[in-house]
Amino acid sequence: MATLDLSAASTAKKAGKLLKADLIADTFRTNIHRSILLTSSPSPNHDTAQSKRIKLVGILATSSKPSEMYAEFTRRRFVLQRVGAAAKEGMDDSDTEGQGAVENAIVEANSDESVGGIMVYYPIFGGLQDHYLQQVVSPAKDVEGLNVKFHYNLYHNIRFISPMSLLSSTSSLKGVVDASTFAEDNLPHGVVKSILPCTPLAIVKCLEYIGVYNRLLDYGDRAYGRTVTVINRSEVVGRPLAALLANDGARVFSVDIDSIQEYNKRAHIPSSTADSTVPRRTQYHTHHVVRASSFTLQECLALSDVVISAVPSVSYKVKTEWLKDGCVCVNVASEKNFETDVRDKASLYIPAVGKVTILMLLRNLLRLREYQSILLEQEKLE
Amino acid sequence: MATLDLSAASTAKKAGKLLKADLIADTFRTNIHRSILLTSSPSPNHDTAQSKRIKLVGILATSSKPSEMYAEFTRRRFVLQRVGAAAKEGMDDSDTEGQGAVENAIVEANSDESVGGIMVYYPIFGGLQDHYLQQVVSPAKDVEGLNVKFHYNLYHNIRFISPMSLLSSTSSLKGVVDASTFAEDNLPHGVVKSILPCTPLAIVKCLEYIGVYNRLLDYGDRAYGRTVTVINRSEVVGRPLAALLANDGARVFSVDIDSIQEYNKRAHIPSSTADSTVPRRTQYHTHHVVRASSFTLQECLALSDVVISAVPSVSYKVKTEWLKDGCVCVNVASEKNFETDVRDKASLYIPAVGKVTILMLLRNLLRLREYQSILLEQEKLE
Repeated sequence: MATLDLSAASTAKKAGKLLKADLIADTFRTNIHRSILLTSSPSPNHDTAQSKRIKLVGILATSSKPSEMYAEFTRRRFVLQRVGAAAKEGMDDSDTEGQGAVENAIVEANSDESVGGIMVYYPIFGGLQDHYLQQVVSPAKDVEGLNVKFHYNLYHNIRFISPMSLLSSTSSLKGVVDASTFAEDNLPHGVVKSILPCTPLAIVKCLEYIGVYNRLLDYGDRAYGRTVTVINRSEVVGRPLAALLANDGARVFSVDIDSIQEYNKRAHIPSSTADSTVPRRTQYHTHHVVRASSFTLQECLALSDVVISAVPSVSYKVKTEWLKDGCVCVNVASEKNFETDVRDKASLYIPAVGKVTILMLLRNLLRLREYQSILLEQEKLE
Repeated sequence: MATLDLSAASTAKKAGKLLKADLIADTFRTNIHRSILLTSSPSPNHDTAQSKRIKLVGILATSSKPSEMYAEFTRRRFVLQRVGAAAKEGMDDSDTEGQGAVENAIVEANSDESVGGIMVYYPIFGGLQDHYLQQVVSPAKDVEGLNVKFHYNLYHNIRFISPMSLLSSTSSLKGVVDASTFAEDNLPHGVVKSILPCTPLAIVKCLEYIGVYNRLLDYGDRAYGRTVTVINRSEVVGRPLAALLANDGARVFSVDIDSIQEYNKRAHIPSSTADSTVPRRTQYHTHHVVRASSFTLQECLALSDVVISAVPSVSYKVKTEWLKDGCVCVNVASEKNFETDVRDKASLYIPAVGKVTILMLLRNLLRLREYQSILLEQEKLE
């Protein structure tokens, strides 16, 4: 048998692990696909074998092709509806007829009882116009979780709702359910988990998989003790993700092009004070509080156990030398936001999360089917 | 349904989790006890039903009672042998007759083929005299893992050995097995894991249980990315524990009454250098390197994800206010080394590890039975 070289000067080369999202997606795939096959339509009017399966409508309005990450859908019972520029050659994406066509397609799908979920391929017109369309999708069919109702719940750490609360046009506490009275996995009839936007949710599932979330801690506080930097503060990914992680107990640095903020639900205790009137760490806000941070990105990274980057730029790179040794890095952008030597410092590197995002869309589709059943029941009672 | 109070000013009080070692011990108990019942004596000369069971001899030489943590043993096939002051009333613990009696009892148990393991209740005479007795126990029967052979292996990160290597009186590379050629859980015949001292091993098992060790990383590097402070640098607990954790990839601060050291197997890179001749982080020593640290205890604690204290003093307390929010604290001393409000900052607190230590003794007993079988085989071949 060969003997080991035991001299202290000898070194072994070993890079951090590359973790493909496929592995994480696999842990969800079978269950979700089986559930989708088993779930029947809640509507008695569509009681044929065909309509027993959940129908997901994808609305494609731009002339660009649906991104590769959605390719999986086309293999399943999924209706791709082409409108506007996607339907007519030579039509400009900013065409006003296109606008009306997209909105009409959404409104039709909203009222079609055979449709279980709606997703729209963004960006279409960009900015506020896309945001408007996101609000047109009925929250009861919003598989992407982009409706402001769901963002409001996320930001306020409202995890459980009655689906009726989605029907009111004002965000209020009506339909908010006190989570302290029941277990996460044993909800009373009529109570559902609020839909989460699919990309931030997919990232949380990745962090659960790799143990950043600690199962020994209470539900709702399992990221306690972890420090996370999220680079990007968009309304679709960065801000909801930072809020989700902070609501789950993490200390989060939210980094944007011109500011750094700290998201934390625990009270801030100045280190130099012994003032007994200062709240203790064991007390925390029911949801995260955002404060301006005086740290630089380099200082944030030096403290961070997890670094998530979602900057839509080819040139943007997180400096490997700034990373904390042994941290976890997750790239969410379609471009690579980490340098090629990232695994010199990272113990685990996830290069993309798209595969998990798709499964979270399907998971949301199943959850919305529950919403729809409950709403239908309550409609009959009235 | 009650609504949540959503005002940002409202706070919820929530202390960190108290984690009793019983829960962790339970994950080992059934398997270990069943294995002990099934394992037969390797000696053909003792082939009766009685001797088929592993015999563990405990040698009690002081007038003090065996500590409560060993009480479990007395319920099983365990022979308590009283010698010296423990055997004769009125005899002083420092009695020279007592010394000889302890040594004789160990030597007899060493050569008794029906004895599978030996443990001695320390302290007896203290200091070097106890250390001498620890070397008298045959490494092939040393359930506590206190023989210098095992410490040598631990410090040099030698995980796999041929039991023959234990018979030589000099520590050398003979019998050291190159671990790169086989999987941890699929060792070739004749190769065994080197015994680890039971208390440090029990602490590692606790850290594995709570997820400080990341299963997604390679065996031998699963604590990579974690920063740990170990308060105590004794040869029985603190130093071997710091070495074990650093060999498993952690950055460890070893804190003693008069110095702080850093144990780390990864190369130290001065942060201000861009010198390409400096080794990269991905290269690491085959075992940890110890360096003096310029940090204070307060600075170490501010960085530490895990704090382990084993200071045998009623008055010593780790300051809660110095802990990093959400860290894990493990008390190993029989006294409480943490303040009563430790869970204001710690996400998890393990107040004692004795229950796990006992099971690690039994686990070592099983492993030594393998050693003995292999040695017996090789004896026959010669």
